[in-house]
Amino acid sequence: MLSKVKQILKDSHFRVSGSLWIEGEEKRFLGPGRVELLERINDTGSINQAAKQMGMSYKKAWEMVNSLNSQVNTTLVMTQTGGEKGGGAIITEEAKQLIMYYHLLRKRFETFLETESRQLGE
Amino acid sequence: MLSKVKQILKDSHFRVSGSLWIEGEEKRFLGPGRVELLERINDTGSINQAAKQMGMSYKKAWEMVNSLNSQVNTTLVMTQTGGEKGGGAIITEEAKQLIMYYHLLRKRFETFLETESRQLGE
Repeated sequence: MLSKVKQILKDSHFRVSGSLWIEGEEKRFLGPGRVELLERINDTGSINQAAKQMGMSYKKAWEMVNSLNSQVNTTLVMTQTGGEKGGGAIITEEAKQLIMYYHLLRKRFETFLETESRQLGE
Repeated sequence: MLSKVKQILKDSHFRVSGSLWIEGEEKRFLGPGRVELLERINDTGSINQAAKQMGMSYKKAWEMVNSLNSQVNTTLVMTQTGGEKGGGAIITEEAKQLIMYYHLLRKRFETFLETESRQLGE
């Protein structure tokens, strides 16, 4: 069957692509957007700045942070007081572990995608 | 590192999940939505009915069909005349091959996801 599919797709540059996330019970826990948010909070020390860089509302970013923190028995993002939209934020060691895990998981997924794409193009 | 991540995620029911699609040069070609649309066109003989079943606008469904047909050198959905929103539609043998290919691809992806999820939960 793959040979017929190759025939249909021939002379084009098709590839298999995809998205990956970790989910809890019916709720998303960690995907590419949340990983990027955590990384930008780590980089800027601010949920507000991280949200701005991603073109995301402050409210949306806070909802993501709350969703992350509420689904595990440990804190992933710690906020410091300092008035409205003030104060800083840092990510914990546990959040950094999760980020590293996600990138390695994505890497294994890339291997899967490359194998499938190569089979389409052969 | 995985042991630390397991520690963070323990006592919850996390699993690795994802989405899969075939893309052309910077353009999506075939993903779960389009596969479902093709299957529903095959089932109902009508783009309009298929769109309705999926809660999708007729315009959106037509755009998907046009995108599918325009990216390969063969017809995937054939429409028959019959007045506005009238007439029928059928999917070709080539479209059926693509649908079957997609489901097998998804099945291989499920194996990947199950392996990763099992490792999280062990």
